[in-house]
Amino acid sequence: MKSASSFDARDFRQALSMFATGVTIVTARGDDGEPVGLTVNSFNSVSLTPPMVLWSIAKSARSRPVFSGDAHWNVHILAEEQEALSNRFSRAGEDKFFGLTLERGVSDAPLLPGCSARFQCQTAFEYDGGDHTIFVGKVIAYDRSNRAPLLYLSGAYALASRRAADVATQPSAMPSAPYSENLLGYLLGRAHYQFMAGFRQRLQHYALSDADFFILSLLVVREPMGDDELATHIGYTGAAADPRSLLSMVDRGLLLQADGYRLSPAGRDAILDVLASAKSAEAQLVQQLGEQDAASLRNLLKKCILASDPGLPALWTTP
Amino acid sequence: MKSASSFDARDFRQALSMFATGVTIVTARGDDGEPVGLTVNSFNSVSLTPPMVLWSIAKSARSRPVFSGDAHWNVHILAEEQEALSNRFSRAGEDKFFGLTLERGVSDAPLLPGCSARFQCQTAFEYDGGDHTIFVGKVIAYDRSNRAPLLYLSGAYALASRRAADVATQPSAMPSAPYSENLLGYLLGRAHYQFMAGFRQRLQHYALSDADFFILSLLVVREPMGDDELATHIGYTGAAADPRSLLSMVDRGLLLQADGYRLSPAGRDAILDVLASAKSAEAQLVQQLGEQDAASLRNLLKKCILASDPGLPALWTTP
Repeated sequence: MKSASSFDARDFRQALSMFATGVTIVTARGDDGEPVGLTVNSFNSVSLTPPMVLWSIAKSARSRPVFSGDAHWNVHILAEEQEALSNRFSRAGEDKFFGLTLERGVSDAPLLPGCSARFQCQTAFEYDGGDHTIFVGKVIAYDRSNRAPLLYLSGAYALASRRAADVATQPSAMPSAPYSENLLGYLLGRAHYQFMAGFRQRLQHYALSDADFFILSLLVVREPMGDDELATHIGYTGAAADPRSLLSMVDRGLLLQADGYRLSPAGRDAILDVLASAKSAEAQLVQQLGEQDAASLRNLLKKCILASDPGLPALWTTP
Repeated sequence: MKSASSFDARDFRQALSMFATGVTIVTARGDDGEPVGLTVNSFNSVSLTPPMVLWSIAKSARSRPVFSGDAHWNVHILAEEQEALSNRFSRAGEDKFFGLTLERGVSDAPLLPGCSARFQCQTAFEYDGGDHTIFVGKVIAYDRSNRAPLLYLSGAYALASRRAADVATQPSAMPSAPYSENLLGYLLGRAHYQFMAGFRQRLQHYALSDADFFILSLLVVREPMGDDELATHIGYTGAAADPRSLLSMVDRGLLLQADGYRLSPAGRDAILDVLASAKSAEAQLVQQLGEQDAASLRNLLKKCILASDPGLPALWTTP
């Protein structure tokens, strides 16, 4: 426990940053008609009756006087796609509004599009808050969208995922078990297998193993591929490309051998049919998770993949 | 855009709830010595020099006077495991502190353990905020842990995951490709395979296929298991239990057949060795992701698993 005499500004900020927040941009228009805006995460709701919100700004900030008196200002809760806008409005000295399409609100304060929610306010109170001024505003108008909001936490942007209350960690009934249902490895495997179960019937219809499926999926994106190139892509699974798998698919008329491996018309039909089925499993999963959680999951899986990346060449970049 | 005359309290709250927040419990001790505490998400930082934070409380709240004057109070930023505590302190009328181990801080305000960060404060200002009172406190002491914080967003608890800026969605160089690197199915498979690559060497050492590994992992948690029971557990992969896989492991001396299948001593040694290697791959992944992202990923994978659950019996519950 650190006590006041030993406060280090950086460490104190780190402790405060454990409190997650959304990210907002607060805008107003100066007496000279120039638009003013800054990125703020000290926003919060205050009152319902009357509707009021608050935020704070450094007393030293050049734009602070613009918000005083009975000024009008707009608070924009940023959506997850607006990270670049957040960065732009957190820096001084550039024309923050350059190229932006502004909407017209109840006042002449700039109103930015594409946000998760917006509040059009007028200063009600201006309070002392140490090295900051706290502005409390009466909300005159507001709107919201279904866009997933951007988060800020521990000094970095973040995404939120709704908590799965009904899959709370299940304490092991067998504490001596060498692994538990809470291990990422177990969960990754189970989620992957269950996802594949959604179209395994189509795989079985064409008598395709997981390895076969993998090879056909590669060739549908790029062909021909030689043994070496296939081996490189399959390499990230840690398994060597099984020559028997390839030969068997040639025997079954799914692959053609000419300058490496190509899909036969029958092979192309088979993999496109399986992929169509995989796509509908994908759509179902995204619908069940919701867009926001699906975006968070993609984000985290990409981090996993990067963390354990064996240096696989990107399939989609032209060779 | 809704304007003030048409404000519906519920709709307005929903718009405000698009601003994500952490969750805190604020505690104090009344003049009668009784501990007081409530769940608050209107917390935010205000000032660095002097260090100050703020939060607001309904003017009608019975405990409000406890925080007035030069009262001491503690703000606890809750960790993701503390959802139940958040619920407990958001309800009136029960003994909120029942069974909790309180720590001793600089004042006699209750200090709760297990949080992401804690701030011990003394009221500096008390401001009017419509139907709420805003308390600004000077921070006298603080501490923090590495526990991932709990979030509140759109009226529900949530977890955060740091945004992977460097794996931004890669636009496909082949727009006609029937699938893309942004599909959950692809990402799940690749993350799973790359994870397994971290201990595939050990699997290969014992000539274990993925299916063999799966069966041995089941038996190390519970044995014996009959054909039917194994088939049920393997069922979620969508594949039937392959009798050849079982017989081959019996032949190789890894399994014993007696009232179903059991691990032989050699089989037990093999699977424990592989699981130890899997555990170290797990530890490495968690370290690379960080505790917070690992917790978010576990949460989301559990949601995937629930969404596509074929009704698998839990392995860990006693039958």
